Amino acid sequence: LVPRGAQILENETGTAPGVLIQKKKTLFAFLPGPPTECRPIVLRDLIPIARERVGGKRLYRREFWRSFGRGESEIYQRVAPLVKNLEKRFPLSVSFGVHISFPCIDLTWEVWDTGEARPGDEEIDRVVKQITEALGPLCFTRRRESLAETVFQLLQKNQRKLATAESCTGGLIGKLLTDIPGSSEVFLGGAVSYANEAKEILLGVPHETLETHGAVSEETVRAMAQGIRERLRADFGLAVSGIAGPAGGTKEKPVGLVYVGISGEQGTKIVHQVILNGQGNRDQIRVIAAHLALDALRREILVSHGSEIPVH
Amino acid sequence: LVPRGAQILENETGTAPGVLIQKKKTLFAFLPGPPTECRPIVLRDLIPIARERVGGKRLYRREFWRSFGRGESEIYQRVAPLVKNLEKRFPLSVSFGVHISFPCIDLTWEVWDTGEARPGDEEIDRVVKQITEALGPLCFTRRRESLAETVFQLLQKNQRKLATAESCTGGLIGKLLTDIPGSSEVFLGGAVSYANEAKEILLGVPHETLETHGAVSEETVRAMAQGIRERLRADFGLAVSGIAGPAGGTKEKPVGLVYVGISGEQGTKIVHQVILNGQGNRDQIRVIAAHLALDALRREILVSHGSEIPVH
Repeated sequence: LVPRGAQILENETGTAPGVLIQKKKTLFAFLPGPPTECRPIVLRDLIPIARERVGGKRLYRREFWRSFGRGESEIYQRVAPLVKNLEKRFPLSVSFGVHISFPCIDLTWEVWDTGEARPGDEEIDRVVKQITEALGPLCFTRRRESLAETVFQLLQKNQRKLATAESCTGGLIGKLLTDIPGSSEVFLGGAVSYANEAKEILLGVPHETLETHGAVSEETVRAMAQGIRERLRADFGLAVSGIAGPAGGTKEKPVGLVYVGISGEQGTKIVHQVILNGQGNRDQIRVIAAHLALDALRREILVSHGSEIPVH
Repeated sequence: LVPRGAQILENETGTAPGVLIQKKKTLFAFLPGPPTECRPIVLRDLIPIARERVGGKRLYRREFWRSFGRGESEIYQRVAPLVKNLEKRFPLSVSFGVHISFPCIDLTWEVWDTGEARPGDEEIDRVVKQITEALGPLCFTRRRESLAETVFQLLQKNQRKLATAESCTGGLIGKLLTDIPGSSEVFLGGAVSYANEAKEILLGVPHETLETHGAVSEETVRAMAQGIRERLRADFGLAVSGIAGPAGGTKEKPVGLVYVGISGEQGTKIVHQVILNGQGNRDQIRVIAAHLALDALRREILVSHGSEIPVH
């Protein structure tokens, strides 16, 4: 059963069809909810219809930056001086947008052909370069890819193998890396060393280190990163330990405190940070901690290969 | 700036407030998008307003079942005979719904006080019992909790410790378990043994087993489950290996083939299955594989503790 006068949009990947209904000047589309059913109909039927209706207005260029490590407002402030001038001069043909793609921040710049004035390619190229420089190492990709994908490609390009040792993230880094088809080319695996026993048995963290400094400490994370690197004979060992909360925080070690260790040929580096000033919830802290680790590894690979601006 | 005539809904967790606008008989609410900002406003302001407007119609009882292992249509078919009769007799006061909460299927039964006839408590209780029996072990909880939470509670209740060995799921099982605050009480950790070397080094899977039977085989998964259980001195070792695709499938071992191994005091059990007939995408296969493992463990704990209907 479909509404009277509706046009059916065939669903090739499921049973419920989509329908199109025209009411006065407005076209309403009702689509199945599951992304695997919705997406093919949008691509096959709706995009062409939308394109036809939009008529004269056409996308001329779209530029994209994805960043990690700073909030929405700081990303906007960094590019605002460059952006404001263009928006003022070309109010109809230029649009900038800053969007949260948690835990990353996206910046999109669209230039439209509307019949009105728009910036030329030379000016666009110049501003793209300025924006890229303003974002610096915060921007990890110019494509719509995840940080894990960027790290995967860097490891692949440099023929490096990674092993992980995860405590508070509990397997999330491994999950993010193995979401990528072909990740076995660079990712050997690792340990989810949630309990202290697991840190000792699977990674060889000395019992005294855990006793003296605790599970969330520079010393333990250093031993975790070195331990997994050596055991799996990897090029990089990436380790994380932190306090994801809601319980377990103290004055000295608050909820949100995370240590990241990267062990490589040249030794072991430690990054530590309190995530969201300890105000984040458990899920947020864990997701940011996993990305903090991946981003630290990304920067390490880029620095050790002499690249200044870590964007590809 | 807010629209003229709008009522402001204060946002205690962010900066942008919500607004309420009345147009004729309709009340429009505009809320901030982030769930952490939207949810408190809905709970504090909108639910009471909606309740007042709904007036006479009040929810009398809501019953809920969450299942894993069979599709939407099979779940509906199992309860249809019980449900149809009630829907026919009480068309205005009774409503059933089957919803996908991927990879689980939810069944909800609501009984409303509308002024019309509705079933009494005795009849509701009887049908609840019949539905619960019809779903049998497919239903793992009567609450809105994840399968990982159910498993966590079972382990906690029976004072059992778990260790995991993940290949194709790459850390996802650990991630799902450690999403739960306090999971360290039952979850020791484990190995993400993505590469064969990791299976040998971290789990002690014999090189010959991998050579002879391959990484995705009963023999390897058996060794993985036993290996992690022994190394971390856990009560249960839970292991998964499979072919998540899109590449790597063969005629004998197609994409979607997954082996789950559970090692316990009484030995090691193997469950194997081809997920979604090998038609699922990588993400779906991995999520289902992780749940297949958790569900196998749930059933194992229940059987070993003599419970017939595994619902709490």
